[in-house]
Amino acid sequence: MTYCVAISLEAGLVFISDSRTNAGVDNVNTYSKMYGFGIPGERQFVLLCSGNLATTQGVVAQIKRDIKQSMPINLMTIGHISDAADYIGEISRIQQEKNTGGGAHYEASFIIGGQISGSRPKTYLVYPQGNHITTSHGTPYLQIGESKYGKPILDRILNTKSSLETATLCGLVSMDSTMRSNLSVGPPIEVTIYEADSLVPGRYHRFQEDSEYLRELKRAWDKSLKAAFKKLPPVSWSSNWDMKQDDESSEVSN
Amino acid sequence: MTYCVAISLEAGLVFISDSRTNAGVDNVNTYSKMYGFGIPGERQFVLLCSGNLATTQGVVAQIKRDIKQSMPINLMTIGHISDAADYIGEISRIQQEKNTGGGAHYEASFIIGGQISGSRPKTYLVYPQGNHITTSHGTPYLQIGESKYGKPILDRILNTKSSLETATLCGLVSMDSTMRSNLSVGPPIEVTIYEADSLVPGRYHRFQEDSEYLRELKRAWDKSLKAAFKKLPPVSWSSNWDMKQDDESSEVSN
Repeated sequence: MTYCVAISLEAGLVFISDSRTNAGVDNVNTYSKMYGFGIPGERQFVLLCSGNLATTQGVVAQIKRDIKQSMPINLMTIGHISDAADYIGEISRIQQEKNTGGGAHYEASFIIGGQISGSRPKTYLVYPQGNHITTSHGTPYLQIGESKYGKPILDRILNTKSSLETATLCGLVSMDSTMRSNLSVGPPIEVTIYEADSLVPGRYHRFQEDSEYLRELKRAWDKSLKAAFKKLPPVSWSSNWDMKQDDESSEVSN
Repeated sequence: MTYCVAISLEAGLVFISDSRTNAGVDNVNTYSKMYGFGIPGERQFVLLCSGNLATTQGVVAQIKRDIKQSMPINLMTIGHISDAADYIGEISRIQQEKNTGGGAHYEASFIIGGQISGSRPKTYLVYPQGNHITTSHGTPYLQIGESKYGKPILDRILNTKSSLETATLCGLVSMDSTMRSNLSVGPPIEVTIYEADSLVPGRYHRFQEDSEYLRELKRAWDKSLKAAFKKLPPVSWSSNWDMKQDDESSEVSN
């Protein structure tokens, strides 16, 4: 599996991805799932990939080929990021169909985000079917891959006014929770932070497996969570706790 | 969906379940998913249900009928809790097959836990296929239904030496995270706490939708998490953050 998250803020965009791929537990590899494209001063894109590796590699190769060959539709000339999402949905469907066979699934999902001069920064999630969604004021993030473990912290912390630093930290905590609960998501962890209206490649960092910062973050979060848990109001064994249940629909103690 | 969790500790067992059922978002109902059976001083069981409501109701009805009719195999005479898990798996498969039709799925999962005099308390998760697993020292809990959102907190807090109070609180936090991220899981929340070797029905409580304690717990956890988050080591924009990526495999900034 994979876990990628993109966060869309007034201040800009944050992209975070893991790097683990697996085809069975004895075939685990490291592949980057984050790709950047752009023309400084004019447009910047970051692409995150999840799903069948042959499909996602095929899509990325096609994107590059279309740029190189100056095809009528390519990321360097496209007018809107939503058009870029349509374009990626289309080539993703073609790749998936090409790979179909033997009843297996070769699905892939993508997040494409960035900014084209004259428009606001945007992010889109492209489904295997080729259609796409974007973020909203209430839900300022998009996830692909193993998204459930890391969702609660995003829901609690993020809003569109969060700083890039807060969103990056929140995304890394979300990644930490996911890695802890699911072996198929793992480091290196890549982060790109794009500042709104900069139109240059964002700040980028790859946290390696032995990253001192990731280890410290994991330790600190674990410790803080345990401390936070200890401060919760205790469950009281008060008079409203029964040895016997008071309605028939569930019969504890019958 | 559903979220149920059972926690197996040296001190006893904790069972927590939500009560929401839905067949589409406009057909949402409240049903208890927790059932108790037992003979004081001899045996106590708690059953948690997830999946197709017709199947789970059919299984519970069958369990009750088999007890009433003193069938050769029934919960009041069975020798081991693992035999009870086998029995539930068998009648679950029969119910599922009976209901099969139109290509739809009528699957159900169960957690059966409790104690029979002379043995230790145990919990088993019974899969739709009828087979089952139990807890281990490393993983002292079992979940059915919408399990991923609430898993990280269980992994961080629980071990077999946790107190019944800690485990109950942790289970309720796990439930809170799940309800926050998934609309199809909702109150009332039922809790049964079985003390090891008591062989009487456990302490039981049903937290209603307007439960002051649940609201307070949700508020306190939200506040503590945010405070814990604020204390994390900040992501530093130090010299090891680049405007440019240093390897070819992912081409941020190309």
